[in-house]
Amino acid sequence: MFQALKERVLQANLLLPQYNLVTFTWGNVSEVDRAKGVIAIKPSGVEYSDMTIDDIVVVSLTGEIVEGKLNPSSDTATHLELYKAFANIGGIVHTHSRYATVWAQAELDIPALGTTHADYFYGDVPCTRRLTDSEIATDYEKNTGLVIIEEFKQRGIDPMAMPGVIVSGHAPFCWGKNALNAVHNAVVLEEVAMMAISTRQLNQTIKIQQTLSDKHYFRKHGANAYYGQKSN
Amino acid sequence: MFQALKERVLQANLLLPQYNLVTFTWGNVSEVDRAKGVIAIKPSGVEYSDMTIDDIVVVSLTGEIVEGKLNPSSDTATHLELYKAFANIGGIVHTHSRYATVWAQAELDIPALGTTHADYFYGDVPCTRRLTDSEIATDYEKNTGLVIIEEFKQRGIDPMAMPGVIVSGHAPFCWGKNALNAVHNAVVLEEVAMMAISTRQLNQTIKIQQTLSDKHYFRKHGANAYYGQKSN
Amino acid sequence: MFQALKERVLQANLLLPQYNLVTFTWGNVSEVDRAKGVIAIKPSGVEYSDMTIDDIVVVSLTGEIVEGKLNPSSDTATHLELYKAFANIGGIVHTHSRYATVWAQAELDIPALGTTHADYFYGDVPCTRRLTDSEIATDYEKNTGLVIIEEFKQRGIDPMAMPGVIVSGHAPFCWGKNALNAVHNAVVLEEVAMMAISTRQLNQTIKIQQTLSDKHYFRKHGANAYYGQKSN
Amino acid sequence: MFQALKERVLQANLLLPQYNLVTFTWGNVSEVDRAKGVIAIKPSGVEYSDMTIDDIVVVSLTGEIVEGKLNPSSDTATHLELYKAFANIGGIVHTHSRYATVWAQAELDIPALGTTHADYFYGDVPCTRRLTDSEIATDYEKNTGLVIIEEFKQRGIDPMAMPGVIVSGHAPFCWGKNALNAVHNAVVLEEVAMMAISTRQLNQTIKIQQTLSDKHYFRKHGANAYYGQKSN
Repeated sequence: MFQALKERVLQANLLLPQYNLVTFTWGNVSEVDRAKGVIAIKPSGVEYSDMTIDDIVVVSLTGEIVEGKLNPSSDTATHLELYKAFANIGGIVHTHSRYATVWAQAELDIPALGTTHADYFYGDVPCTRRLTDSEIATDYEKNTGLVIIEEFKQRGIDPMAMPGVIVSGHAPFCWGKNALNAVHNAVVLEEVAMMAISTRQLNQTIKIQQTLSDKHYFRKHGANAYYGQKSN
Repeated sequence: MFQALKERVLQANLLLPQYNLVTFTWGNVSEVDRAKGVIAIKPSGVEYSDMTIDDIVVVSLTGEIVEGKLNPSSDTATHLELYKAFANIGGIVHTHSRYATVWAQAELDIPALGTTHADYFYGDVPCTRRLTDSEIATDYEKNTGLVIIEEFKQRGIDPMAMPGVIVSGHAPFCWGKNALNAVHNAVVLEEVAMMAISTRQLNQTIKIQQTLSDKHYFRKHGANAYYGQKSN
Repeated sequence: MFQALKERVLQANLLLPQYNLVTFTWGNVSEVDRAKGVIAIKPSGVEYSDMTIDDIVVVSLTGEIVEGKLNPSSDTATHLELYKAFANIGGIVHTHSRYATVWAQAELDIPALGTTHADYFYGDVPCTRRLTDSEIATDYEKNTGLVIIEEFKQRGIDPMAMPGVIVSGHAPFCWGKNALNAVHNAVVLEEVAMMAISTRQLNQTIKIQQTLSDKHYFRKHGANAYYGQKSN
Repeated sequence: MFQALKERVLQANLLLPQYNLVTFTWGNVSEVDRAKGVIAIKPSGVEYSDMTIDDIVVVSLTGEIVEGKLNPSSDTATHLELYKAFANIGGIVHTHSRYATVWAQAELDIPALGTTHADYFYGDVPCTRRLTDSEIATDYEKNTGLVIIEEFKQRGIDPMAMPGVIVSGHAPFCWGKNALNAVHNAVVLEEVAMMAISTRQLNQTIKIQQTLSDKHYFRKHGANAYYGQKSN
C-alpha cells in the first residue's frame, strides 16, 4: 500500500552516504503522504548498506506505527512536528553533515554571503535558540521540532523560502517538496556552510547585497523564474 | 554543422564534475567559433550525467539561438560580453568552485602568493566591484560581463595574462584559448585560491616577490618560454 | 587456537585505511581475550595491503609473544597497560588520524561542542599531560599507557563513558567493547575533532549545554537507551 | 642500459597523482645512479596518464642528456645540485603539494609539533631564504638548489635527518635513499604540513618536547631503531 512512498524514502536515504553527508547511521530522511496522513521514515540505527524497502517505517501523523517491524528514527517526533506546522513541505532530512553542524555547534546563523546561498536560501539560515532543560528532559525530539517552528514564527520566516535550519548545539534539518528535494537542499546547505566558514576567516563582517540575494533567489524561484528549462 | 564545436564544449563541461569544480548543475563552459560568429554553451539546469551533444546550445554572438532545443545557460549573456571584449579568448568557464567562491564572497582579490599562482596568473586575480542595484535589476547577466571588463580596463590588466576573475559576492569566471584550456585554468584557480586561504591564516601580509612572479610566468608563457616540450 | 581473535583483529586493522584514519602503517588495532590472558595485535611496520591473518601477533598480558613470527606493534606495551587498568574494554585502536592528532599537538582537550560528540563521548576528550623526560627515556610505550590511566584517575573519568584519549604531542588512542567497536569510536573521534577545530574558528568559548550532553549520551547508552533497535 | 633505473623513476612519478600530491604535471621525481654518474628524471610538462618508460630522461650529473628524446623536467638543475651536495641521497621529489606549499608561501619553517613529524623529520622543516633578483634572473633552477644547500649548511642540518625543505614562495623538495623513499617522505611532509596549519589555529606557540622528538626519531632511525621488522 505504501510501496511507492517507501521506495522514494529508501532511495533518498541512500543518497546521504553518496553525497558524503553522513557517517555511519547519522542521518534520516522522511516523506509525507498528506492524503493518507502518514510519513515514511528511516528505521533507527540501521546501516545504509543493509537497508531495504522493508526496513522503512510508516508512521501516522499522530505518531503510531502503521507499517514496519523496526523502530522508526529516534528523530521521528521532530519530523512530525515540522510536517504539521509547515503545510507545504513534502520531505525532511536530518544529518550531522560536517560544516552545517559546525555552525550549529557555534550557535550562529549561517550568514548569506553569496549567490550560491541566495540561489536556495532566502536570507541567513537560522540557528534556533537552545532548548530549555525541561524541553530536553521531556519530549526532547518533539520539542526540537517546536523550537524550530518557534524560530520561524518569531522571525517571520517562510519555510518555503528557507528550506533549512540548524538546531543549536545539534545539527541541521532541511526540507523540500519531497524527500529527494530535501536531500538536494541538504547538499546545498553543507556546501554554503563550508564556504561561509572560510569566508569568515577572510572577512569577519561582509554580507551579500540584498538586491543580489533577491535577484538570485527569484531568478530560480517563483512566478518569474528563468533558470533551467520550462519543463523542469 | 557545429558538431565538432559542440563536442568540444560537451567534453569540457563533463570535466567540471570530474575535477570536482561543481555541485549539481552549478557550472557551464562555452567555446567560441569567431569565424562563424557563434558560441556553443551548456544548456541551463541540465544534469552533467544526462548531458549529450544534442543538448549543447549554439548561440550567435548577438544572442540568438542558432541550434538546439533547450535554453542556453542563464549566464550566456556574461559569456557573450567577455567574448566580444576580450578578442583573443576562445573558451570560458563559470563555476561556483569552493575556494575561488570563498574569495568572491569575501570580496577580495586572490593574492599572488607563490609560484603555483605565478605559473598561470600574472598578478593578483581581481575581484570585481559590486554591481549597482540597477545593474542587478536589469540585464543582470550582461552587466556581470560588463563589470568584469570594466575591472580589467581600469586596472590595465591583459586578459591573456590573467585568465580569470572573481565576481564580487558571486563566483569565478575563467577563460583560455579554448574550452579545454579554460577548464584547465579553472582547476588552477581553485587550487591557488585554496592555498591562499591557508597561507593567509599563517601570514596575513606576505606577497610573492615580483621577480619570482615574472620568472615563473615567463618561463611558461611568451616568446622565451622553456617549460614543457617544444611541440606543446 | 587464536584464529577467530586474529581474524577479528585483522579485519579491524583493515578498516583503518578504509575509513581514511591512517597513512602508510601509522595505526594499530588489538583485541583482548581475557579468559586466555592474551591480546592479538597488528605487527610493526607492515603495510595494510600485504597483511594476512598469519601476520597478526598474539601476546600475553605480561608481554610475551605467544604466537606469530613478526614483531608486534611498537605500541604493544601501551595497549597492555590499558587492558590491565580498564577492566571492561575489549579492543584498542591507535592512529595518527589528522584532526584528533591536531588536538594532541595543540595539547588541548577536545571540547564537547555538540550532540555528535555527546552521542559517544561523555564530556571533553582528555589530553594527557606531557611525559617527563625520564618517562620518555625508559619504557616509553608503557609509560604512555600509564599517563593515560593517571589522567583518567585524576579527573575521575570512567573509561566506558569516555572511549578515547589524546596523548600530548602524539596522537589518539580509542577503545571499545571489542576491536570493531574501538575502530568505530576512532572514526567518531576524528569526526568530532575536525568539527571542533572549525567550531573554535567561529566561536572561541562555546560549550554544549550539560543537559543536552546528558540527553544524547544516555539516549544511546545505559539502561534507558532508546536509540536503535532492541536487538542492537 | 638504464632500464631498471628508468622503470623505478617512472613508477615513483606515477605515485604522485596516486597520493594526491600533484595537479596536472606539477611534480617530478628523479633517482641517481652514482656509479654511472647519471640521474633519471621525469620529462617536462608530460601528463602522468600518458607517461611511459621511454619518456623518462637520463641526464649526466653535469647536465647533458644521455638518453631520451624529450626535455627533462625544468627543475633538473635543482635536482643535480642537491645530488652533488648531499652525497647520501638517492632520490628526489618536487611537488606543489597543497599544505607544504602553503608553508612555503607563508615563508615559514614547518614547526615540529608532534610525533608524526618527529618519526621522519628531526626538527623544524626549514624554509629557505628568498632568492635574490639576480639568482632568479640567471640560472634560477640551479640557484634554487644552491639556496637549499646554503640553508642546510648555515643551520648545520644533516640532510639525512631532514629529508625535505620548502623553498620560499615556491614549494617543497623531498629526498630519500631512492626515488620511492623520496616519495614516501613527500607524502609525510604533506601530512605534517596540513596538521601543523590546523595546530597553529588552536595554539600559536606550542612546540614538541625535544626529548619526545628524539625518542620518536631514534626509535625509527639509526643503530638502536626498534620500529618495524628486522628485515625492513
